[in-house]
Amino acid sequence: MAYGLASLLPKLGSLGTSDHTSVVSINLFVALLCACIVIGHLLEENRWINESITALIIGLVVGVVILLVSGGKSSHLLVFSEDLFFIYLLPPIIFNAGFQVKKKQFFVNFITIMMFGAIGTLVSCAIITLGAFHTFKKLGIGFLDIGDYLAIGAIFAATDSVCTLQVLHQDETPLLYSLVFGEGVVNDATSVVLFNAIQNFDLSSVNPSIALSFLGNFLYLFLASTFLGAATGLLSAYVIKKLYFGRHSTDREVALMMLMAYLSYMLAELFYLSGILTVFFCGIVMSHYTWHNVTESSRVTTRHAFATLSFLAETFLFLYVGMDALDIEKWKFVSDSPGLSVAVSSILMGLILLSRALFILPLSLLSNVMKKNSEEKNITFREQVIIWWAGLMRGAVSMALAYNKFTRSGHTQLQDNAIMITSTITIVLFSTVVFGLLTKPLISLLLPPHRQSSTVSSDANTPKAPLLGSREDSEVDLNGQDLPHPPSLRMLLTAPSHKVHRYWRKFDDSFMRPMFGGRGFAPPAPSSPTDEGA
Amino acid sequence: MAYGLASLLPKLGSLGTSDHTSVVSINLFVALLCACIVIGHLLEENRWINESITALIIGLVVGVVILLVSGGKSSHLLVFSEDLFFIYLLPPIIFNAGFQVKKKQFFVNFITIMMFGAIGTLVSCAIITLGAFHTFKKLGIGFLDIGDYLAIGAIFAATDSVCTLQVLHQDETPLLYSLVFGEGVVNDATSVVLFNAIQNFDLSSVNPSIALSFLGNFLYLFLASTFLGAATGLLSAYVIKKLYFGRHSTDREVALMMLMAYLSYMLAELFYLSGILTVFFCGIVMSHYTWHNVTESSRVTTRHAFATLSFLAETFLFLYVGMDALDIEKWKFVSDSPGLSVAVSSILMGLILLSRALFILPLSLLSNVMKKNSEEKNITFREQVIIWWAGLMRGAVSMALAYNKFTRSGHTQLQDNAIMITSTITIVLFSTVVFGLLTKPLISLLLPPHRQSSTVSSDANTPKAPLLGSREDSEVDLNGQDLPHPPSLRMLLTAPSHKVHRYWRKFDDSFMRPMFGGRGFAPPAPSSPTDEGA
Repeated sequence: MAYGLASLLPKLGSLGTSDHTSVVSINLFVALLCACIVIGHLLEENRWINESITALIIGLVVGVVILLVSGGKSSHLLVFSEDLFFIYLLPPIIFNAGFQVKKKQFFVNFITIMMFGAIGTLVSCAIITLGAFHTFKKLGIGFLDIGDYLAIGAIFAATDSVCTLQVLHQDETPLLYSLVFGEGVVNDATSVVLFNAIQNFDLSSVNPSIALSFLGNFLYLFLASTFLGAATGLLSAYVIKKLYFGRHSTDREVALMMLMAYLSYMLAELFYLSGILTVFFCGIVMSHYTWHNVTESSRVTTRHAFATLSFLAETFLFLYVGMDALDIEKWKFVSDSPGLSVAVSSILMGLILLSRALFILPLSLLSNVMKKNSEEKNITFREQVIIWWAGLMRGAVSMALAYNKFTRSGHTQLQDNAIMITSTITIVLFSTVVFGLLTKPLISLLLPPHRQSSTVSSDANTPKAPLLGSREDSEVDLNGQDLPHPPSLRMLLTAPSHKVHRYWRKFDDSFMRPMFGGRGFAPPAPSSPTDEGA
Repeated sequence: MAYGLASLLPKLGSLGTSDHTSVVSINLFVALLCACIVIGHLLEENRWINESITALIIGLVVGVVILLVSGGKSSHLLVFSEDLFFIYLLPPIIFNAGFQVKKKQFFVNFITIMMFGAIGTLVSCAIITLGAFHTFKKLGIGFLDIGDYLAIGAIFAATDSVCTLQVLHQDETPLLYSLVFGEGVVNDATSVVLFNAIQNFDLSSVNPSIALSFLGNFLYLFLASTFLGAATGLLSAYVIKKLYFGRHSTDREVALMMLMAYLSYMLAELFYLSGILTVFFCGIVMSHYTWHNVTESSRVTTRHAFATLSFLAETFLFLYVGMDALDIEKWKFVSDSPGLSVAVSSILMGLILLSRALFILPLSLLSNVMKKNSEEKNITFREQVIIWWAGLMRGAVSMALAYNKFTRSGHTQLQDNAIMITSTITIVLFSTVVFGLLTKPLISLLLPPHRQSSTVSSDANTPKAPLLGSREDSEVDLNGQDLPHPPSLRMLLTAPSHKVHRYWRKFDDSFMRPMFGGRGFAPPAPSSPTDEGA
């Protein structure tokens, strides 16, 4: 307690200088967050800007101001504790994405998503590695070894799921959203495995057993993370259903849901799994079971509170990235050879563009071929272009990997490493701002409104309830689509995902829902009928 | 970014030992919070236990376990950043209290609350100082000077508003709740002024000018803090009304309300005001204006999300205090002279009991005399006993003051200082557990259900709406109570608070509400009529 309480001086009005500086910083940061929300709201009608770019630009502007005011010493407002991104900001964003995702869209496209996320990331990493290996030597960058090149491949193959949430909208382009965002989630697991494999395996002797162990590692990570997320979600559903918290307190239900979701993420970190995958599946399970077990007001609260927390975390993230990009220390090495830095960034950007195109197009074709007999929609070429484009953004994950590789190895001061860091920052800023800015116009160019609505209609053929709209309609849709059809042989053969889905529904209805609650199996709500609409 | 991102290793699965330890700690702590919620829920029917005591006891038990497992080295799970309590845990708790408080109860009893909070704290401080000064010398504690004794008075005059929220319930005993909790909020401002006065003023020459400057200081602090809170709340109401966020996004409204509330607290810290007072009044203003300007679903969300955050922060606080009380370092000095420590703690506890009785009884009498002509209820003797009892608990504020005074002065190692620290811990634990445990039985003994219900009935004579119950009925009550009465001369003379209230209503209706929104003046809700019940 001595440690925790000794400097609670702000409270007592006798602040030391350093404490008061942090109070000033928090004030400025909170005020900036408010400004981002208000400005983002005012720019809502604008077709170019989205919220993350607003935050990024405000961050950059404030960074410049702080840089000028402090006389070039610093562009930071807050010195964050180490784990800020991955312990506090990422979990609410990814959990909310899982919680609000249209489950049907996600699972119908599961195979495509897995291909994009796993195979695509590997292809992308290999192409970037090879490309960098052959071009960097000609630029005179000689200090990098084979491990460094592989790391560069892994760093720039890591997409940014958070940006995807900002540029694609689930309600407008459900197929594209589920593909690109789903890919981003799977990509995280692949990146973790890939990066660890590169760090740990003996790279001098590449042989089939490494590839096999890599595959085993990936499968273990993917399955274990998914299982952990689902198990935590089911536990929360079971506990809330069994104890029926709503009887006494709505707040306990909400608190327990929040804590269990966060626990799933932290447990994954504890067991060295992919926290992003775990918390994503925990969100899916919670929205399928737990959410139906709580009282009416808890449903409204969780739905909006999780979205709000996620929104705040996203804005915070982009504001900070914008502010931090100007940190003067990072740029001092580059000033000696600005041309080289520009060349490296351009080459890497080109490789990112190329490598993504080289896996999106063939894998989309493959996916179309696989489902050509079913009633499902193919991925059109225009949609492939958008998928390619919307996944080009690089963000916090790339930054974290780059710092881990190029500042920790003990040779931080080498110019080549400094160039890799500044190139990463350049690519993150450039891709977020430029690709982010152009995504909305690109979508309205390639998928004009009448095309978009045809994409939507497959999922939104039931009128939306005012509040629960996008959540409910996927399940309403399922009921209307599957149950009336008799199981014909043709359908079982040609639509494997429908078959899987039918078995799942059976299992869900006869075992899972009676056990864990969920739609129609929740305990009777104690609220009055007037609540039902909310 | 180097600083913030360099060690984001948990993400990458290549955790260092220390990083992984903190992941383990977070996991355990989150799991314990879940356990507290579940156990607290199971014990809900129990008349003795409340949630905070459950958390405190679980914290103590886990502290013992960790102590045994770590071989006596530590009883902590997390080493917290310095500002944990006052920057992160206290604001949501106090804001929520202001947000959910029955405004009428609070303002009707405003004068009594101010007397208890300001005069009461001073009387209490003086009595504890004098008592300690005369008894401690006989025990052989000679190192303390007059400033130390005054500090002891200030430390043990600081009540714990958080405990009050746990032991008294707004719906069951509204008068007692508003008196004791309101006193706790005002007490905070007084404690800050008092403690700073003791630290800064020249104590060798006590003269009237010090008293005057003290009074001026208190008035400035109280008025400035109140004004800041109200101004921030009104700003949020104005912005949300003017920009009409609900048009685009419910989440932005909720996010902005959260941020503005937090901003009010941090601004108060920035200007060396009382953050607790500020955020409390910000909560009141937000519930009166801002809350009515947002969409229906945002109302449900904010109401429950703020309550949930507050609930989590409270549970966290008590869990941590319980776990931390066993920190072995604090107790090693005491082991030399256990008798002395027990004697000091007992004397201080006795002084707390005595000093509180000595201001509650006369000030209650005074309050009764002042309003004897109006229709308002007097504070009965039984109620006085409960007010006395429910305000005996000491908590985090006392701890913080004690640490600030007795570990920072450079002579931490003195035995007398160590005894003061351990005595503070003993009193905090003892008062929270014993007084907390006995409050529920005491209330049902002194105010049997039929008496309780008569206390409630004055405020709850309208049927509650299912979700908005306790919030709305205070205002519904006002409408039903004030508007029908014609303004008679007798009423204006005998019921000053009613007169003030009438003028306020007029001002509110003709100027404030058209400007800042609020009940009946909010923009038309875009939601469908089915939402109205929620």
